[in-house]
Parts: sequence; structure tokens; C-alpha cells
Amino acid sequence: MLTDYAKAAGLLTASEDIAILCHRSPDGDTLGCGYALCLALLGLGKRARVLCSDPLPRRYQYLAQGVPSLDFSPQFVVAVDVADAALLGGLSSYGDRVDLCIDHHPSNTGYAKSLLLEGDSAAACEILFLLLGEMGAAITPAIAGCLYTGMATDTGCFRYSNTTARTHRIAAQLMELGADVGAINKWLFETKTKASMELKRLAEGTLEYHFGGRCAFITVTQEMLQKSGALEEDLEGVSSIPRRVEGVVAGAAFREQPDGIWRLSLRTGEPIDASEVCRRMGGGGHSRAAGCTLRCPLEQAKQTVLEALSHDL
Amino acid sequence: MLTDYAKAAGLLTASEDIAILCHRSPDGDTLGCGYALCLALLGLGKRARVLCSDPLPRRYQYLAQGVPSLDFSPQFVVAVDVADAALLGGLSSYGDRVDLCIDHHPSNTGYAKSLLLEGDSAAACEILFLLLGEMGAAITPAIAGCLYTGMATDTGCFRYSNTTARTHRIAAQLMELGADVGAINKWLFETKTKASMELKRLAEGTLEYHFGGRCAFITVTQEMLQKSGALEEDLEGVSSIPRRVEGVVAGAAFREQPDGIWRLSLRTGEPIDASEVCRRMGGGGHSRAAGCTLRCPLEQAKQTVLEALSHDL
Repeated sequence: MLTDYAKAAGLLTASEDIAILCHRSPDGDTLGCGYALCLALLGLGKRARVLCSDPLPRRYQYLAQGVPSLDFSPQFVVAVDVADAALLGGLSSYGDRVDLCIDHHPSNTGYAKSLLLEGDSAAACEILFLLLGEMGAAITPAIAGCLYTGMATDTGCFRYSNTTARTHRIAAQLMELGADVGAINKWLFETKTKASMELKRLAEGTLEYHFGGRCAFITVTQEMLQKSGALEEDLEGVSSIPRRVEGVVAGAAFREQPDGIWRLSLRTGEPIDASEVCRRMGGGGHSRAAGCTLRCPLEQAKQTVLEALSHDL
Repeated sequence: MLTDYAKAAGLLTASEDIAILCHRSPDGDTLGCGYALCLALLGLGKRARVLCSDPLPRRYQYLAQGVPSLDFSPQFVVAVDVADAALLGGLSSYGDRVDLCIDHHPSNTGYAKSLLLEGDSAAACEILFLLLGEMGAAITPAIAGCLYTGMATDTGCFRYSNTTARTHRIAAQLMELGADVGAINKWLFETKTKASMELKRLAEGTLEYHFGGRCAFITVTQEMLQKSGALEEDLEGVSSIPRRVEGVVAGAAFREQPDGIWRLSLRTGEPIDASEVCRRMGGGGHSRAAGCTLRCPLEQAKQTVLEALSHDL
């Protein structure tokens, strides 16, 4: 059931021994939320811990610094930035006992007993910042850094169109509260491993254009991953490369899986609905970013995508 | 002579027929300031025009949209984001008749009769936003877009350490005043030409590491420029690549000039003073970004830089 800031704050301040659930394949927003809320609850004298079915990616390990790993049987369960119980991954046994969910996905399935949802918020961390204020929780520099991380990663550092005036105002407040944004931005947006840089370079060598340059393809093979030493988590950045080329309205990344099948990521601009195009190939997603799986050789996979796009291009 | 907001506003509102000077090799901040001020003065019923010794780069042509090119003999001259009269380039004849300079470079030489300077402002556009308020000028969506452009480009879209809480707050106000930040960010930060992407890819193939990975070199030859079809303005992004590799504290870009000599751009992290390192090679600059010219073959140029860096690495 939908709830509001005052009620959600009341639930949290009245609770003890709180488990905080992040979504699988965790990103900066779910983890920033998780650790910010955990630190705030600890600051209020409660026991709290963050749970996630996947390991903490190296990129986000700084968020957990100084957060104790407490062992207790949870009395209250909060999910942060988790739109669907299925996204809890290995924590799915918690799916029907989530007391409160704090989220910004309009697609939230409403699986939690109480749902604090703002669909036009750039990040769940933006909602949590306001909620912590309502709870009377002290926002330390570490908490401010966690919240800034979620807002910066979900907005591409204030570049994406989900950024609002409120997003900037909260960022300003978080800086004043001591978030170390210089170090965070340098680490998140200005630091690349040699391996991820080399993977990108190898992939960029495969860029090819179709439909007079309105469509671009990029390919990542298992051989490139091995040659560069890059990790699965380095692939996300590669998927967005073709769409960045001037004039491209449909950018597709073909990623070879260990079993030889191809995973397609499609990014589109107006008016092409990526979700609709991928649906034609048995996949789905959002209107600007979607995907599907193609069980055939690469050349055939490319033909399939060109045909699926030919309705729009 | 240093002046304040009220006096600078008084000078501008009392003037007619105003020429606005931008610096040579114009960037988003000098041009954003220039066109924002021009539009604001036109809105106040004055004649005004923007002057620059170099052509308007394609990247920034949207700033000048709908700005009339008026012909008049200027009665008042304002320089925006111009730290030194030498940076006026082909407009240097104006150097000793600048009535007002609006700038954020602590190194400003004080060449103007009046200088409105805030050295800790992320962008000159940030100062101009406050000044327009003081002048009682209406900030239209087009003016807000110009000001946002200068702030976003000088901060790497709010990533660099010059970004302050005030920067974010002003960005919020500019969004509310109608700046089309979605389109501006997409164009400035998410759009690359095929040529610039190919130049980057060719250059990344030359990445080499020294001092156990604490130093990285990248090289751009004239052949790469020709092969990719990239322009001089695409080189700026390449210079910052080596410094982004994890563990690198000194990143150097060697750029071959048409006459075969090498232009070095050096980017460093604490505690290495790029300006001091480049001074040893006859150049100079800022503590984190500096440069020099090396008149010798590439291998020798690299040796020279390695020796200059060996004091610190």
C-alpha cells in the first residue's frame, strides 16, 4: 500500500533490528540507499544491516567502509530501490515479508506492505534524503556521500533527463553536509581500469553503421573479454557507445555469452521504442533501453536486428 | 580595479552600444557568458554584440541562435572569462579599452578598467547569473541555457572539484527558468562524431605505461587526424585519457603539430605539480594541467618527459 514520508518515517523510527534489502546486480542507487539508511539507523541507536544477493562490486566498496556487519534476526524489513520482489535474487525468501519499500520506479509491483514511491525522483537516494529529514536522523558526511553516490550514478552525474531542479538542490545540501564529492566523482566518473579501457577500444574497432548512419552496431566477443581482462561489470558502458555517435537513433551492442549465444542491448532515441523492437525478437525493457537474446551466429543475429529495426528506420 | 556586483551592474545598465569580448579558442563558458549577456542587454533595450577572434565552434553554435548580429561602434566594452588581454587573440586592439571584465580566473591580470572577479566560482557564467539578477535583467529560457552551458562545460557536468553547492543551486534555478538541459547535456556530453570517436580509438591504441603504471602516455599523430577526419577541437578530450587510468598520477598526451614538433599536455594528481614539471621543459600552466612544446623526434620527446617526471615519480 502506498504510504507517505511521515508514515514511513514513523515505521522506521518505531522499529528495531532492521534488515535492508538491495536489488541483485546492485548499482550505486540501491547500495547508496542501503548504506545511508543503515548508517542513519545505527546513528539512531538501532541494529541494522544491508543485505544483497550479489557481492558488493569493487566500484562501490567505499560505501560500506566503517559499516559493522551485525548479526541479528530482523524484526523489520526494508527494500530500497527494488521495483519487484523478483529483483531480490537470492534474497527472494524475503519477498513476501517486506514491511517497507522505498523506490522511484513507476513500475513498482507493490509487493511491500508499505510503499514510499516517487516515480519522478531521479534516484531512490533522493527520496531517502527527504525521509531521513522526516525521521530526524543526523546526516553525517558518510551518509551524505552514500546519498550523493546514488543520485550521481542514476543521473550520469546530472546529465540524464531524469535530473530535476530538486536533484541539484539536494546535491548542494549533501555537499554542505560533508559528502566528499571530489573523491567520489573522480572515482566513479574519471577512473577506468586498463582492462576496461582496452575492452572499450577493442569493441570500438567493430563499430559499423546501417540505415545511412541512423543505426550503429558494436560487438563484444568472449575473446575481447579474455584479451583485455575486463569484467562483466565493464560491459555496461560499452552498450551505450553506439547510441552516442552523432546521427544514431538506434544503437545496438551484441555481447557474446560464454555459451556462444548473443545478448543484444538496444538504446534508442525518439521516436523509436526500444522495448517494442526487442519484443519483436522475444525480449523487452524500457522505451529507450531494452534487450533480448539471439541464439544464432553473429551475422544472422545482426540481420535479425536490422529486420526488426526496418519497421522504424 | 576590482569592483563588486552592484557597481558592475550599474556600469552595464548605464551603458549603450556594448561590445562583448570572448577569449580566443572559445569554450562553453566564455561563449555562454557572451551570448547570455548579449541577450540580456538586448532585452533591456540596448544594442549589443558578441566578438571573438576565432569562429564559433560547431559544438556551441546553438548558443548564438536567434541572436542578431548588430553593427555599431561600441561605447562600452566588456570581456567575459578573459583572464589576460593576450587571450583576446585577433581582438587584442581592444586590450587597453576594456571597461569591464567578468571573470573567475584568480590569475586575471587586471587589464580591464573594472574587474568583477570571483576566483572560487566554477564558471564565469555563475558570476554572470548573479550579476544579471543585480541588473534586474529578465532571464529567458535562452539566457538560462547559455548560462547552464558555461557552468556545465567548466565543471565537466558537475564532476570536477571546482563544483560547489552554489553551482548546483544555480543550476537548479536555471532549470526552473527554462534552460533546456536535457537537449544541452545530450548534445555536449553524450554526442560524438564518428571522426572524434575514431581518433580516440586510434590514440588509445598508443597508450603506454611507465613508473610501474603511475605514469601513462598517449600519442596523437597528424596521420591519425587525417585518417579519422577529426578536427583540432576533438583533441582536448584525448589529452585527459591517460590520467583517467586507475593508478596513473601523471598522464601525458603527445600531439604532433602540422610542422612535426610535439605539443605536450600533462595532467597530474596530488602531489605532482604539472606546471612545475612543464616549467622544466620550457612550458607552464596550472598545477593539475600544464603543457609545453618539444622540438625533437617523438622518442626523444618521451625521454625528456620521463626525465622531467623522474623528480616526482
